[in-house]
Amino acid sequence: MTATDPTDKPKGPLAGLLVIDLTRVLAGPYCTLVLQDLGATVIKVETPQGGDDARHYGPFVNGKSAYFMSLNRGKRSIALDLKAPADRAVFERMIGRADIVVENYRPGTMEKLGYGWQALRTLNKRLIYAAVSGFGQTGPYKNRAAYDMVVQAMGGVMSLTGHDDGKPTRVGTSIGDITAGLFGTIGILSALEHRHRSGEGTMVDVAMLDCQIAILENAIARYAATGQVPGPMGARHPSITPFEALKAADGHMVIAAGNDQLFARLADALGKPALAKDERFKTNDARTRNHGSLKAELEGLLAARPSTAWLAILDKAGVPCGPINNVAEALADPQIVARGMVVTTDDPVAGTLKMAGNPIKLSGFADPATRGPTPELDGDRAAILKELGL
Amino acid sequence: MTATDPTDKPKGPLAGLLVIDLTRVLAGPYCTLVLQDLGATVIKVETPQGGDDARHYGPFVNGKSAYFMSLNRGKRSIALDLKAPADRAVFERMIGRADIVVENYRPGTMEKLGYGWQALRTLNKRLIYAAVSGFGQTGPYKNRAAYDMVVQAMGGVMSLTGHDDGKPTRVGTSIGDITAGLFGTIGILSALEHRHRSGEGTMVDVAMLDCQIAILENAIARYAATGQVPGPMGARHPSITPFEALKAADGHMVIAAGNDQLFARLADALGKPALAKDERFKTNDARTRNHGSLKAELEGLLAARPSTAWLAILDKAGVPCGPINNVAEALADPQIVARGMVVTTDDPVAGTLKMAGNPIKLSGFADPATRGPTPELDGDRAAILKELGL
Repeated sequence: MTATDPTDKPKGPLAGLLVIDLTRVLAGPYCTLVLQDLGATVIKVETPQGGDDARHYGPFVNGKSAYFMSLNRGKRSIALDLKAPADRAVFERMIGRADIVVENYRPGTMEKLGYGWQALRTLNKRLIYAAVSGFGQTGPYKNRAAYDMVVQAMGGVMSLTGHDDGKPTRVGTSIGDITAGLFGTIGILSALEHRHRSGEGTMVDVAMLDCQIAILENAIARYAATGQVPGPMGARHPSITPFEALKAADGHMVIAAGNDQLFARLADALGKPALAKDERFKTNDARTRNHGSLKAELEGLLAARPSTAWLAILDKAGVPCGPINNVAEALADPQIVARGMVVTTDDPVAGTLKMAGNPIKLSGFADPATRGPTPELDGDRAAILKELGL
Repeated sequence: MTATDPTDKPKGPLAGLLVIDLTRVLAGPYCTLVLQDLGATVIKVETPQGGDDARHYGPFVNGKSAYFMSLNRGKRSIALDLKAPADRAVFERMIGRADIVVENYRPGTMEKLGYGWQALRTLNKRLIYAAVSGFGQTGPYKNRAAYDMVVQAMGGVMSLTGHDDGKPTRVGTSIGDITAGLFGTIGILSALEHRHRSGEGTMVDVAMLDCQIAILENAIARYAATGQVPGPMGARHPSITPFEALKAADGHMVIAAGNDQLFARLADALGKPALAKDERFKTNDARTRNHGSLKAELEGLLAARPSTAWLAILDKAGVPCGPINNVAEALADPQIVARGMVVTTDDPVAGTLKMAGNPIKLSGFADPATRGPTPELDGDRAAILKELGL
C-alpha cells in the first residue's frame, strides 16, 4: 500500500509472487504489466547496454520515454550481462527464488545462454517459464523475427480491416503484441493452478501469429461454413444491421441496433416508425441484405440533427449507440473516469503522467489511482542484491 | 481424453474445475471457451426459449450455427428457467458445486433473479463470480447496453484505425468483446490463486469499454506526453519507419524494419544500399519524419518484382516482412498449420468444421487437433441432473 492509495485493501491476488521479466518492447512487458497490476512483484532484467529498447522510444518527458513508462510503471530493474559469470550467478539466484520467468526473445536465444526451459527447471522445478514470440517455439518460421505489423498481416486481421478501396489498413493499436501478452498471462496463471496441484512448473509457449488466428472470430466461422473468403467491411458488421458508423449533421456516430426490437425503437426515435415495417428492413437478415438502402434512409433522417443530439435521443430510447471518441475524448469520458481507467504515475523524473488503468476490477482488492514510478535502468540493483543475500 | 486425441497427455491445467456459464453471444462465451480449452468443464445454462442468441446467427451447417459452434465446442448445455422454482433448485445445486460462474448480462439482471454476487456467495463461499459487461458494474453508464461497435467507437480504437479520409473504420474482428473475454479470464484465474490462499471466491468485474482503454498502447502515451491527439495512420506505425504496407508489382506486402540495422539490410536487399546512408533516412526518427519520400523510394524499388519474390529475398536477408493474407491464406499457412491453430470439431449434426485452435501451448498438456462437439440446447440435461444427484 502506498501513501496515495486511499484504501486498506490488499494489493492484488498475485501479491508475493516473484516474476523475473526478461522481456522488451511490448508483448512481454504488457504481460508482466498485467501481472504487476494484479499484485505480483516484477523485476526487469535488462541488458547493461541501454536496457529495454522501449526506453529509447519517444515521446520523452524530462528525458524519460512515456511509452516505456506506460508499460513498466511499478516494476523494478536490474541490469545483468547474462554472458558474464558474476551476473549469471545473480540471475541464477533470482531464478531460484522466482515463481515465473517471462521472455520474448527469438526462440533459441535463451538456450544459447544456457537458460532454456530445461536448464532453468533444474534450478527451480516450481518455475513457470513463459516465452512470448512472433511465431512460436516450433514450426517452420520459428527462427524468424516478427513484429506486430507482420502478424496482423499474415494472420488475416488486416484483410478484414478497412474499406474495399484497395488501401491496406492496420488496426490502429498493436493488437498483435497485446493479444499475445494477454494469452501469455492466461497461460501463466493456468500454470499456477497446475503448480498448486503438482508442485511443478510448466512451459508456456505463446506466438503472436497464433493469437491473431484466435481472434478472427466470425470471419473464420463464415469461411469454414461457406468457403467464401471475408473481406474488409469498413465500419459495419458483416451479419448484424444496423451495426455501423452513420453520419449525422456534424459527423459520424455509431448505432448498434442488433435485433428487431432495437431496430423498431431506433425507427421510432428517428421519427419514422414505418421503417421497421418496411419489407426490406423487417428482419436482421433483410436489413443486412439491404444495408445500402437502409444506410441511405437512416443517414437521411440523421442529417436533421448533430450527433450529440441524436445520442441523447437514442440513449433515452434504449438504442445502443455512441460517439466516435478520439483518445482525448475517451480519457475524459465520465464512465471511463468513474471506472478508474485513467491512472497516473508519480515519477520522480517525469512527474505525473496519465496512463491506462487496470480493466480487471476485483472485489476485495485495491485499484489505486496512482501507480508506482518507473525504474531507471539498474535502479533497483542494490535493493535486489540485498534481498537475495548477495 | 477422447478417442481422437493421439496423446496420453492430460487435458489441461484447469481439469476438474466446474464453470457455470450463463453467457451469451461473444465476450462471455469467448472467456469460457478459453477456460474450456485449458481443461475446465463448462456447463452452459441457457434460456429454454431458444438458448444463446448466437445459436441463431448464420451461416448454418445442417441447421447448426457455425458461429455458435466456433465459440461453444466442447461445452455442455442445460436449459433452465431461472424464474421457475424447480429450475432454480437445479441451478442452486449447480452453484453449490461450481468453482466459477460467468455471466454477461446487463448489470442488475442477476440481482433481479436473486442471484447477484452477494446472494451466490452465501450458497458457495469459494465461488468465483465473473461479470463481463459493456460498461461495468459501476459508473454513470452501468445500466446501458453496449456492443462491440459501441465500445470500439467510444474507447478511441476507431479513431486510430483507418485512413485520414473521413471514412470511419472498425477493427474487422470484434476486439471489444474478445479483449473483455481475455481480461475476464485473467481476472478469474487470478481469483483462483487468491482462493488457494484464502479459501474464498472473488467477484471479477470486467467492462468492454475499459478494455478498449487498456489496449490504446502508444496512443495514450503520446497523448499524455505531448497533448497531441493521435489520429488514424492507415497501414503504418506512428513512430517506427518503415513499418507498413508497401506495394510490390502485384500488390501490397508488409515490411517491418524496426531499427537502423534492419533498414540497412532492407536497403541492401532491395539493391540500393545508398538509401541507408541518405541523410533523410539515416535514423528511425529521420525515416519517420520523411516517411512519405521513403515510401516513394521503397515502392519504386519494390515495383520491379511481385511480392512473393520480394518476401523470399527479404526473409533470406533477415528483414521482418510478410504477406497480407486473407482468412483462407492464413488458415493454410504452414506455420499456422504446424502450430495446431486450425482444429476441427467432429459434430454429429454439422460434421467436421474448421475453427481456431488454442494459442496457449503448455508443456505437459494435450493440444488435440479435434475438439468436442457443440451441445444442442439442453442436450446434457439428463447427464447433468444425474451428476448432481437429482
